Amino acid sequence: MQRTVRFGDTDAAGVIHFHQLLRWCHEAWEQSLENYGLNALEIFPCNINPKKPLEIALPIIHCQANFNNPIQIGDQLLVKLEPERLDIGSFQVKIKFLRKEVTVATGLLRHRAINSQTRRRCSLPEAIDRWLEASSILQGPHPV
Amino acid sequence: MQRTVRFGDTDAAGVIHFHQLLRWCHEAWEQSLENYGLNALEIFPCNINPKKPLEIALPIIHCQANFNNPIQIGDQLLVKLEPERLDIGSFQVKIKFLRKEVTVATGLLRHRAINSQTRRRCSLPEAIDRWLEASSILQGPHPV
Amino acid sequence: MQRTVRFGDTDAAGVIHFHQLLRWCHEAWEQSLENYGLNALEIFPCNINPKKPLEIALPIIHCQANFNNPIQIGDQLLVKLEPERLDIGSFQVKIKFLRKEVTVATGLLRHRAINSQTRRRCSLPEAIDRWLEASSILQGPHPV
Amino acid sequence: MQRTVRFGDTDAAGVIHFHQLLRWCHEAWEQSLENYGLNALEIFPCNINPKKPLEIALPIIHCQANFNNPIQIGDQLLVKLEPERLDIGSFQVKIKFLRKEVTVATGLLRHRAINSQTRRRCSLPEAIDRWLEASSILQGPHPV
Repeated sequence: MQRTVRFGDTDAAGVIHFHQLLRWCHEAWEQSLENYGLNALEIFPCNINPKKPLEIALPIIHCQANFNNPIQIGDQLLVKLEPERLDIGSFQVKIKFLRKEVTVATGLLRHRAINSQTRRRCSLPEAIDRWLEASSILQGPHPV
Repeated sequence: MQRTVRFGDTDAAGVIHFHQLLRWCHEAWEQSLENYGLNALEIFPCNINPKKPLEIALPIIHCQANFNNPIQIGDQLLVKLEPERLDIGSFQVKIKFLRKEVTVATGLLRHRAINSQTRRRCSLPEAIDRWLEASSILQGPHPV
Repeated sequence: MQRTVRFGDTDAAGVIHFHQLLRWCHEAWEQSLENYGLNALEIFPCNINPKKPLEIALPIIHCQANFNNPIQIGDQLLVKLEPERLDIGSFQVKIKFLRKEVTVATGLLRHRAINSQTRRRCSLPEAIDRWLEASSILQGPHPV
Repeated sequence: MQRTVRFGDTDAAGVIHFHQLLRWCHEAWEQSLENYGLNALEIFPCNINPKKPLEIALPIIHCQANFNNPIQIGDQLLVKLEPERLDIGSFQVKIKFLRKEVTVATGLLRHRAINSQTRRRCSLPEAIDRWLEASSILQGPHPV
């Protein structure tokens, strides 16, 4: 998928303000779920419709980002995701941001499934399992 | 109350990125409630503790801001609130940001009380009523 | 243009956090300039390339937003812009957000041209003038 | 230093939206510089005063965060910094967020000094060197 850098993403140094990259990572993950056919309301809490609260929450337990090259307003970035299941109850998504085939930044989000009432660890939701499966097939046996 | 402008509040033009001011307005309102002795969990939703969901929500129905003078990193701003009840179910908060006695920006948040289940209009929560009352007394009959 | 509401746009009340709408307004304006063929680096400061600092800055002097209906994660919004020149040195952009033909929110950004060195008022940049002209033609004599 | 969690920091899951923690980390670093007596305008770019552009920029080259316990609105957090020089041209700041003596989250920012014109690596600014020195003395030989 593509992303254009906007004025509000940058700071007074003229490059993206570092934590905006992590917002982009999360939005790229959401876009990937949507492309796979998942409805955001099945995965993310939204207490405007409290009749069916989600049983499983997917909090982020770790995130990181590396900045290789300055990213500035107007840049057209190619965004590549590499989701990976870590164990029965957690997964991570690596995200690469490329400009003209150069990786200018990378990000990583690590999520763990918990029961949203008890907040104890549990298995990943079935929908996420299917999306992880499909993503790894798309990447092939030897993802680069 | 006081607020220091941080690097992440500013944009590539060297002044605050405009919508950060509205974040500051909301945080100033929260600080005012806290100073009055109200617990954030009585006023704001937080579905981590779903046993007692709030009956009344206070969505913002209108906001605005005016920018008179450039605000830059390191500026020490004085923040002044003028809360005002509009009718039985709504109120607004005007916020002034001053630097060395000059009003550099103003903001306004208008809230309406709704039942959080039915989303129909309702009366303001008692706690907000008391805070509005106390705030107008503090400002006196002729608020400056 | 279209916009999908993401998880990070929403708050604990399950609807968009109000000031995110103003970020969307600015990004919609940037997208409109881009669609018209303008390069972001001609309009917005980016001090990573300090050889040719922009002569004219376009600070926002006023912004506002109205929230008619709750906007939640996953919503697909249609974004409509109505730019309007106010005088020789200022213009505003009204932005409507529609969901299934219902206007769920509106925003407004008002910009004034200033000389970026002296910070005195000046005429709008030529490129913005042309974009305003083209936008008003697109809207026709009786914009709805 | 202290930090109170505000409504806009939290998301629809009722806990802080993950990348806000990295904003807090940066603001804690800025506060630490200020407490040490440094003026933000000597360290951070602000092109509103273009007469003396900063010679050295300090871009973030890596950041990360770990989330141990849910952080919710109204939480009063104690923020502890551990700055550390990595080599002649780079340093990192570890930040711990504690609630009632429990570390609920940690963050890390890694900065590299570059010449702001050529964007080549250079030595840290003297003021940052002094602040790093003073910070390590404060932590003592066996920082906890």
